[in-house]
Amino acid sequence: MTIQSFIPPHRILMGPGPSDISPQVLQALSRPTVGHLDPLFVAMMDELKSLLKYAFQTENEFTIAVSAPGSAGMETCFVNLVEPGEKVIVCRNGVFGERMRENVVRAGGIAEVVDDEWGAPVSVDKVEQALKANPDAKVLAFVHAETSTGACSDAEALGKLAKQYGVLTIVDAVTSLGGVPLKIDEWQLDAVYSGSQKCLSCVPGLSPVTFSPAAIEKIQSRKTPVQSWFLDQSLVLGYWSGEGKRSYHHTAPVNSLYALHEALLILKNEGLEAAWARHREMHEKLKLGLEKLGFEFVVEQESRLPQLNAIYVPEGIDEAKVRTHLLETYNLEIGAGLGALAGKAWRIGLMGYGARSENVALCLRALEESLNQ
Amino acid sequence: MTIQSFIPPHRILMGPGPSDISPQVLQALSRPTVGHLDPLFVAMMDELKSLLKYAFQTENEFTIAVSAPGSAGMETCFVNLVEPGEKVIVCRNGVFGERMRENVVRAGGIAEVVDDEWGAPVSVDKVEQALKANPDAKVLAFVHAETSTGACSDAEALGKLAKQYGVLTIVDAVTSLGGVPLKIDEWQLDAVYSGSQKCLSCVPGLSPVTFSPAAIEKIQSRKTPVQSWFLDQSLVLGYWSGEGKRSYHHTAPVNSLYALHEALLILKNEGLEAAWARHREMHEKLKLGLEKLGFEFVVEQESRLPQLNAIYVPEGIDEAKVRTHLLETYNLEIGAGLGALAGKAWRIGLMGYGARSENVALCLRALEESLNQ
Repeated sequence: MTIQSFIPPHRILMGPGPSDISPQVLQALSRPTVGHLDPLFVAMMDELKSLLKYAFQTENEFTIAVSAPGSAGMETCFVNLVEPGEKVIVCRNGVFGERMRENVVRAGGIAEVVDDEWGAPVSVDKVEQALKANPDAKVLAFVHAETSTGACSDAEALGKLAKQYGVLTIVDAVTSLGGVPLKIDEWQLDAVYSGSQKCLSCVPGLSPVTFSPAAIEKIQSRKTPVQSWFLDQSLVLGYWSGEGKRSYHHTAPVNSLYALHEALLILKNEGLEAAWARHREMHEKLKLGLEKLGFEFVVEQESRLPQLNAIYVPEGIDEAKVRTHLLETYNLEIGAGLGALAGKAWRIGLMGYGARSENVALCLRALEESLNQ
Repeated sequence: MTIQSFIPPHRILMGPGPSDISPQVLQALSRPTVGHLDPLFVAMMDELKSLLKYAFQTENEFTIAVSAPGSAGMETCFVNLVEPGEKVIVCRNGVFGERMRENVVRAGGIAEVVDDEWGAPVSVDKVEQALKANPDAKVLAFVHAETSTGACSDAEALGKLAKQYGVLTIVDAVTSLGGVPLKIDEWQLDAVYSGSQKCLSCVPGLSPVTFSPAAIEKIQSRKTPVQSWFLDQSLVLGYWSGEGKRSYHHTAPVNSLYALHEALLILKNEGLEAAWARHREMHEKLKLGLEKLGFEFVVEQESRLPQLNAIYVPEGIDEAKVRTHLLETYNLEIGAGLGALAGKAWRIGLMGYGARSENVALCLRALEESLNQ
């Protein structure tokens, strides 16, 4: 076969991520590559850290972007904070809670699972019981915004509960960062990871993470080395330290970091509160329209994420056929169900730059047309 | 501080990587993001696989790009191929051989180190002695092109030796791929990783890897799970399998993969042999000029990499000052020495798109001027 340059169509991305990306971010992405130890790049990284701190609402000195996707951000938290033989309470109410459990096991830890229904938030009561029943637990791990179901858990209550019982928290904020309130310092969360390609509307491939002083202390007092060289944050610290002299760890993904810088700048200029309000507002519009079309949400109103709308596929509809129709006719991508919801639900993302009235209108009109064809 | 969009200058990148990038690749990078499960993206990934097979000169079905930098590609090979308690012969003649040893240890393996001088190639004789002395060794690991010194080792001889002794090979081809001959199938290499930002002249952040059928067999017959969830290639196989139905593992770095596709297409259109010849030719030009200026190479002629020229800093010269001058006056980046060569050598890269007459001319003129100032 003769291969030619790949010229993608312009899709409207309303799935679970990657989300729609502003042309401004794509432009930043393609600026000339400089060396990863170039003084100008080092200064850019310092700005990036400060923008990340704003987005995470934290003063944590260790607030960086892992040079790999969100799954690697998750693994970064587990392999650095969990030592072999340590017990971790893992909340599981969707795909990513189960992935957390898998990470605990692979790091040599012992996972004590707290299960909740898919679509329900993590039960704070059950977690408290688990903390009482497991006084030897070292870490509480939970997903703030479950991308597989669209459920938002009470990270504030869980964070405070963890402090009360003296355990560290590992929090998945992949889909929450920039879309709903997330306040690392106020909520006393310890190790939090996110993704570039959700409500930050940056290209996929980077994972913002932030570690509290307590998390750093835990890393520095480890008895065993971190099993991953690439994700060992004690080695990465030197590179991001911002003390002028950087030590080489790995080659930073320079252009992707340009894009993240730009995406975070857009978020800062809009303001976090305004961004959260915009996500809510677009969700309300979408919800009204979806309810008029007869759709039911997977998640109850009070714990529903505005940026990820999981709805049941109506009886008798071939869900894959509808998604293909939307993609081929409207260049519109919505997400399939994942895990327990595969084949049963769609996931409609309203993330970052994608949370705009024109996207909501297109989605509603195109869905309506597709169901009636 | 008020943060603004980051507008980098146009540097000429003649360090150890990232290398100069063609505007064509940067343009591909900034094309509209599509979903990572979009059928058009899946088709692009199939093309990418076939382009990678060409670059690696292999028919290996498992030939993909890890969604993270070369260091993660290295770790991918070790954590998948080495089980706890297994012995690995590691050749160490620079920074990256030592990093390999570190990876063996973190994967729970036993590293048997074969040392050679910095700047020298790996001694095939010493490796044969080590293979004889360690009949229980499972893997031989070596760096084809040592980025820290510019030495090229005889991957063909080492690959064949490994087969003779019945061990698998893990090969670092980060700086060799696309710059000097590398023939995975002909040389019978098993697990080989590279980087996007060297002779492929793509943006940093991706690591092409290829696994032979024997390497895949080893992965599939493991007794213990791979310690890394993110790098577990038995999970990644489903995503890259190209059998129409992809299973979700992680969100692929969509735009970076566009860029890699374009960079590999450029390589294919030029032809591997022509690219190797161009690197040699540019190296000859640079070498002549450097010798006229009185520079001495760290590596002997016969094992010198054309794409990475390590030269000693002349006596009495403040090497950091010269690099800063080159950067500030000419927007020209050359590399500092690393590890044992820190402060003693410069590394001049002629990689991929950077291996052009105009770069050689600029570098020679700018160096001459800097030394005489």
